[in-house]
Amino acid sequence: MDTIIRINVGASGGPKADKEPIGKYVGFGGRAMTAAMVHDEVPPQCHPLGPENKLIIAPGLLTGSAASTSGRLSVGCKSPLTGGIKESNVGGMAGQYLGHLGIAAIVLEGNPSSETLYKVIITREGVSIEPDDDLRMLTNYELCARLKKIHGSTVAVISIGPAGEMGLSNSSVAVTDAHFRPTRQARRGGVGAVMGAKHIKCIVIDPAGTTIREPADPERFETANRKFIDGLHRHHITGHDLPQHGTNVLTNLIDGAGSYPALNFRHGRFDGTPSIDGYAMELLADARSESTTCSDSCFKGCSIQCSAQYLDKDGNFLSKRPSYQTIWAHGANCGIDDLDVIARLDFMDDDFGFDSIEMGVAIGLAMDAGVIEFGDAEGAIRLLKEAGRGTPMGRILGSGAATVARCFGLERAPVVKGQAMPAYDPRSVKGIGVTYATSPQGADHTAGYAVAPNILKVGRDIDPLGIEGQIDISRNLQIATAALDATGYCLFVSFAILDQPDTFDAMLATINGMFDLKLTGRDIVELGKLVLRMERAFNEKAGFTKFHDRLPMYFSREPLGPHNTTFDIPDKDLDLVHQY
Amino acid sequence: MDTIIRINVGASGGPKADKEPIGKYVGFGGRAMTAAMVHDEVPPQCHPLGPENKLIIAPGLLTGSAASTSGRLSVGCKSPLTGGIKESNVGGMAGQYLGHLGIAAIVLEGNPSSETLYKVIITREGVSIEPDDDLRMLTNYELCARLKKIHGSTVAVISIGPAGEMGLSNSSVAVTDAHFRPTRQARRGGVGAVMGAKHIKCIVIDPAGTTIREPADPERFETANRKFIDGLHRHHITGHDLPQHGTNVLTNLIDGAGSYPALNFRHGRFDGTPSIDGYAMELLADARSESTTCSDSCFKGCSIQCSAQYLDKDGNFLSKRPSYQTIWAHGANCGIDDLDVIARLDFMDDDFGFDSIEMGVAIGLAMDAGVIEFGDAEGAIRLLKEAGRGTPMGRILGSGAATVARCFGLERAPVVKGQAMPAYDPRSVKGIGVTYATSPQGADHTAGYAVAPNILKVGRDIDPLGIEGQIDISRNLQIATAALDATGYCLFVSFAILDQPDTFDAMLATINGMFDLKLTGRDIVELGKLVLRMERAFNEKAGFTKFHDRLPMYFSREPLGPHNTTFDIPDKDLDLVHQY
Repeated sequence: MDTIIRINVGASGGPKADKEPIGKYVGFGGRAMTAAMVHDEVPPQCHPLGPENKLIIAPGLLTGSAASTSGRLSVGCKSPLTGGIKESNVGGMAGQYLGHLGIAAIVLEGNPSSETLYKVIITREGVSIEPDDDLRMLTNYELCARLKKIHGSTVAVISIGPAGEMGLSNSSVAVTDAHFRPTRQARRGGVGAVMGAKHIKCIVIDPAGTTIREPADPERFETANRKFIDGLHRHHITGHDLPQHGTNVLTNLIDGAGSYPALNFRHGRFDGTPSIDGYAMELLADARSESTTCSDSCFKGCSIQCSAQYLDKDGNFLSKRPSYQTIWAHGANCGIDDLDVIARLDFMDDDFGFDSIEMGVAIGLAMDAGVIEFGDAEGAIRLLKEAGRGTPMGRILGSGAATVARCFGLERAPVVKGQAMPAYDPRSVKGIGVTYATSPQGADHTAGYAVAPNILKVGRDIDPLGIEGQIDISRNLQIATAALDATGYCLFVSFAILDQPDTFDAMLATINGMFDLKLTGRDIVELGKLVLRMERAFNEKAGFTKFHDRLPMYFSREPLGPHNTTFDIPDKDLDLVHQY
Repeated sequence: MDTIIRINVGASGGPKADKEPIGKYVGFGGRAMTAAMVHDEVPPQCHPLGPENKLIIAPGLLTGSAASTSGRLSVGCKSPLTGGIKESNVGGMAGQYLGHLGIAAIVLEGNPSSETLYKVIITREGVSIEPDDDLRMLTNYELCARLKKIHGSTVAVISIGPAGEMGLSNSSVAVTDAHFRPTRQARRGGVGAVMGAKHIKCIVIDPAGTTIREPADPERFETANRKFIDGLHRHHITGHDLPQHGTNVLTNLIDGAGSYPALNFRHGRFDGTPSIDGYAMELLADARSESTTCSDSCFKGCSIQCSAQYLDKDGNFLSKRPSYQTIWAHGANCGIDDLDVIARLDFMDDDFGFDSIEMGVAIGLAMDAGVIEFGDAEGAIRLLKEAGRGTPMGRILGSGAATVARCFGLERAPVVKGQAMPAYDPRSVKGIGVTYATSPQGADHTAGYAVAPNILKVGRDIDPLGIEGQIDISRNLQIATAALDATGYCLFVSFAILDQPDTFDAMLATINGMFDLKLTGRDIVELGKLVLRMERAFNEKAGFTKFHDRLPMYFSREPLGPHNTTFDIPDKDLDLVHQY
């Protein structure tokens, strides 16, 4: 991976692609690459949809190698949703194939002077950019069906749906999975709108003639990788829970802990949880088809296999198996306890190109405003259709939770830096509240998953209702995650590497075997700090201060049942998170 | 004026009013009072619609006295539109009557626990708060008609229309004029939504049994006031242009200077200017009724009389004479060259309770997005009706220009700190660009009217297309304006006091006569600095930095015809504005 592809859509005479050597970015991958390039090349004051913004698409350091569960791809830019730096991390096949092609990053830059929509095709031979206005406003599934006829299904596709074309602040970049379905989405922060502003509808990545990346020290690499895979299989979460239930294994755990934000963050438990949790989904799947329960991976070469297909009552594909976050966002947060409805909404999010978290919170706010009632499943489907069509109501929803709150005069918007909170209420999992508040990414559970030590008791055991230890745990997890997001490893390996020191060592040895290096745990920590420092430096010049590292005030005022706790981590403590 | 009325709408048992002595705020009035109270009492991190925000309504220091043209009222809070501190300044009769009643400020605080809407009545005897859900969603004109039947027209009313009740970020606080019409609006920054969040539909101010405020040194006061009035009559702008044409006298001047932002800030001149400028309006008025051209004042005791009635072709009242800003916002900015349409839109803004600047820019953006065509007068009327009704499209528009841009994926939003720019393009009146960028209020021409020295050649003569002198002139005008907004004098006296030293001296002597003081020009400057420092201190804790003191990047990239200039004042110079 020693090549950067730069596509200037604003070039005179039309979009132009150039290849350049990786140069000073050697050793950077994934989130480290996107953070560094956004930090170095994007003026922090620019408008996210303006020509000065860039979209950086970068596979992780190990992506495309045989390292298990390491196929992640980072999509970075100045975020249309938050106004700060954004890295949105996605699985699927595109990262792997970019790795095979030796491409360390694709940079989309400039803004086109015409309305023409483009398709980019990347092969071993080079890059071609074709105008194709027939693709306009196709959904991601429609687009993939069309591309399949032309390119077959041995390519990978990075694309935007109507949401990205419309420039909506909640719009994702979709990536095809191992079944050539656009179920994998770099979904947070509106990265799709930046791709839309560049008028790039899709990037087709054809790995024909390429092979998996070779490690520099094959023996060391393979030995370590085997140990790492053993570790993943050994840990109950990565070896059993995630393959069996997907992330939905969390639903009754978090509900039981009273940290499951129901009905727009008004309660910490949801009455309908038994109808939507992992067991409910398993029973439903068993009744419908044996194959439904078969776990599956979003990219080839994953040893966790947290994905699956979700079939309807007639055995037809309805969506990928929805994640914990989606089941919460469209379910508990909206008072909807019907998994078929949730799966349908999940499909629509992938199809139009919306982040399901942001969309679920947006619809929950619309319910709070009285647009439809909580629990109105048909109403939720209707609203999401409007978002995909771009009606005025749809544009409000598609612009994210903060915009719904603004347009309907609501105070209670669960957002930080303009981005909606995920499925953990910060009043009863205070560690994740610290991450929501202080991550440069806005409210994001994946930026420092303090739920692990707070509730799952992975790594450490910290009282989720207490203040003690939360700052340290969030800091350490934010640093570790920033590094992990650079490697290409999936965040889900964290459960095994936090609990099992030998699995962490095996991961490190795999990296060292890949590059013939002698990195230590300390080097990984330093990489994480570097990424966060670059992200925060960008954000500072974009206008963020410590006063943006706060939760909305109502989380400190309004107690959450059943524990009746508020978020009471002092501001001065929050200011210590990034002291490292 | 030694009493503060505090209305806590969140008190247990329902809203409760208390009177308290002015205490430490003695010597503060208008913008100085609102800035100080917001600075001292509102947590900068709070949500503008949350219970921690307060709405402060404060007459100027001289308001309610016989000092000519000094009846202004300040409305302050944390702004729902900008997220920073806000002072919105308004004429009308309410300020005068509050002065007569000896009330230095009304403070609305807390948030009510029920949905009940309230009417507040303030008389010499005290304050009563009456629940009145029949007032819900009445427009300002409908409300005044109803209140007139109960209270007569010798009271003044401070009210919100549907926009404020809906919590929209562009919503004004209306004040009745000398004809008991709600034509005077504290219109910028969404102050109406804060009043709406408090569920106060209106405040009726009954001055029965009170009289004009007596000066401490009547002879000094009266002598000075007479000289001041002479000065206003002597200056061509305050003595002739404003009474004759209203502020619309500016239209062909600014268009001629190439600084008149047409079609969503795409051009510096508007083809339709001859149909909407001051002369066109005068001709139309002459043809329709002699009385139309009669100038009028927004409150009793003004020597400028820039207002008038605008009659339709049948001689019926259509609106107040629309201001330069409104004629631009709904006219040139939207490609509409029909004064009757503009007057109708002006009436609708007043009636629903919208800021016409923000609304005109919002509609211009909707035109740019293709919702309707530029120049579509019927379409603009339809959109404004939707805003008043609160349809989804209406809520987008009613949330302000930045929200329209967000929902339609547009980069080119002419806003600073979330507030729409008024009728001067900063690329060809660079001094006003400095004020837009650096005012704590967001883009606001009244915060430091550099158009005066740049184009009108009042006070000084600075090249509007040049960089030189712009920082100093904006700084000095921002300081002077902050002080003037504290006195209760109308900003329009600036023309006379900047050009005529003896008129400035007369104004100062009037203030000194009122309070038996020996203030000098330096004291006025220090007052202005104090106000700005309080505002900026609040904003800093609300999360604003020097990086928010910038114009959108496209103003530096996209040249504006006919001069083909960009906004090129260096950032480092902008950072010097508030060094004093």
